[in-house]
Amino acid sequence: MLTKSEIKLVKSLKDKKSRQEFQLFVAEGKKLSSDLITAGLEIDQLFCKETVLQTTPFSNLPENCIRIVSNKEMEQLSALQSARDVVALVKIPQFDLPDQLTQKLSIALDTIQDPGNLGTIIRLADWYGIEHLFCSEQTADCYNSKVIQASMGSIARVKVHYVNLENCFKKYGLPVLAADLNGTPIQAFTLNQASILLIGNEGSGIHPLYKQYIQESLFIPRLGKAESLNAAIACGIITHQLLFK
Amino acid sequence: MLTKSEIKLVKSLKDKKSRQEFQLFVAEGKKLSSDLITAGLEIDQLFCKETVLQTTPFSNLPENCIRIVSNKEMEQLSALQSARDVVALVKIPQFDLPDQLTQKLSIALDTIQDPGNLGTIIRLADWYGIEHLFCSEQTADCYNSKVIQASMGSIARVKVHYVNLENCFKKYGLPVLAADLNGTPIQAFTLNQASILLIGNEGSGIHPLYKQYIQESLFIPRLGKAESLNAAIACGIITHQLLFK
Repeated sequence: MLTKSEIKLVKSLKDKKSRQEFQLFVAEGKKLSSDLITAGLEIDQLFCKETVLQTTPFSNLPENCIRIVSNKEMEQLSALQSARDVVALVKIPQFDLPDQLTQKLSIALDTIQDPGNLGTIIRLADWYGIEHLFCSEQTADCYNSKVIQASMGSIARVKVHYVNLENCFKKYGLPVLAADLNGTPIQAFTLNQASILLIGNEGSGIHPLYKQYIQESLFIPRLGKAESLNAAIACGIITHQLLFK
Repeated sequence: MLTKSEIKLVKSLKDKKSRQEFQLFVAEGKKLSSDLITAGLEIDQLFCKETVLQTTPFSNLPENCIRIVSNKEMEQLSALQSARDVVALVKIPQFDLPDQLTQKLSIALDTIQDPGNLGTIIRLADWYGIEHLFCSEQTADCYNSKVIQASMGSIARVKVHYVNLENCFKKYGLPVLAADLNGTPIQAFTLNQASILLIGNEGSGIHPLYKQYIQESLFIPRLGKAESLNAAIACGIITHQLLFK
């Protein structure tokens, strides 16, 4: 039987404040939890239906961190419309800001507010092997359960740093490339040195505060009439072009 | 004062069956409704707060299709967490299947189920001036309110056809290019003739039924460890590469 305080703890983790206090986030579903474990994240508690337990890597978890729950209890724990078979409480990974950025490309996000967009960007950063993602403090929290579900396990491999972006640009002193509606068409630009790609807010774009750090504005040529592209789509297209031109 | 039957009608439109019966869909927000009107879609009823009315193109609407409502009534009508200032009932546009496809690229979707993904794909099709989007009958309904909100007005310009994809491939007889995890790296492929880009389901990819129609499988090279990319992101990257190589 689950205790009231266990249910309360899981539910509380939908709030950023609680996630920070307990240094835990929630991952739902067998595949996602198992991907996070395989990628090296630590599990604090794993609530699951009994049938799930035979599956590695769950069978490698210490016994005292596994709680078998009934279907009804799972529904109480789940934040999803239809509960999965696992709710895992995962320890938030700890890492320092890198001293320098040696990869060809890092990504910075200015106030990306939609959790689905942020999760999708984390996943595409992982696809392209990008290690560092710098988020302004107004960006959605990457341990929000919607971000975690959309990032499909990539949160275990991409290091997401919440920073003052101005300080970040000053610290690394690398060229900042901005996704914009004007500038150089993306296919005419060649990435010659380690750089930071800056993606702006879904509605208002890049904050004027950051304009002075931008070395090159890049735009995705438009053939039709849409006013803009979704921020995650723009990030994907530009990242691909920068790395594979 | 709104009548109960008006509220009931608006609420009923969250179901596909009602949307088909009344041939109406819901768009929320001043910007979105105004974009749809400007792009030529017809409004059946526009429920709005009084302050909104000064704005063109609402001021051009016939008087009998405008209903001024209170904040409280707007909350009753809205399906969003925080109600906007406009709820528009828009007539579903009518168009025939084209006899042939003359554009360089059309897109086909096999069972894209996430409304946000579908809306994002409609928006990117509009960005790249792609006129026709063919959806398998299992794909999310493009007049679902989440799709409408994510498509940002592009639903007025992109023609979305729900079809049997096999019949569609046979009818047009064009090369089908599939986004896949194996095949030709996308940057090594050149689009030489009018083609259809096929994007598969978020979880299970492209249905085996369609494999026989695929002339070329294209993949987006991976440098990192994510298992896959979000379907809309993959669609965006491939579309860009095909049109701008």
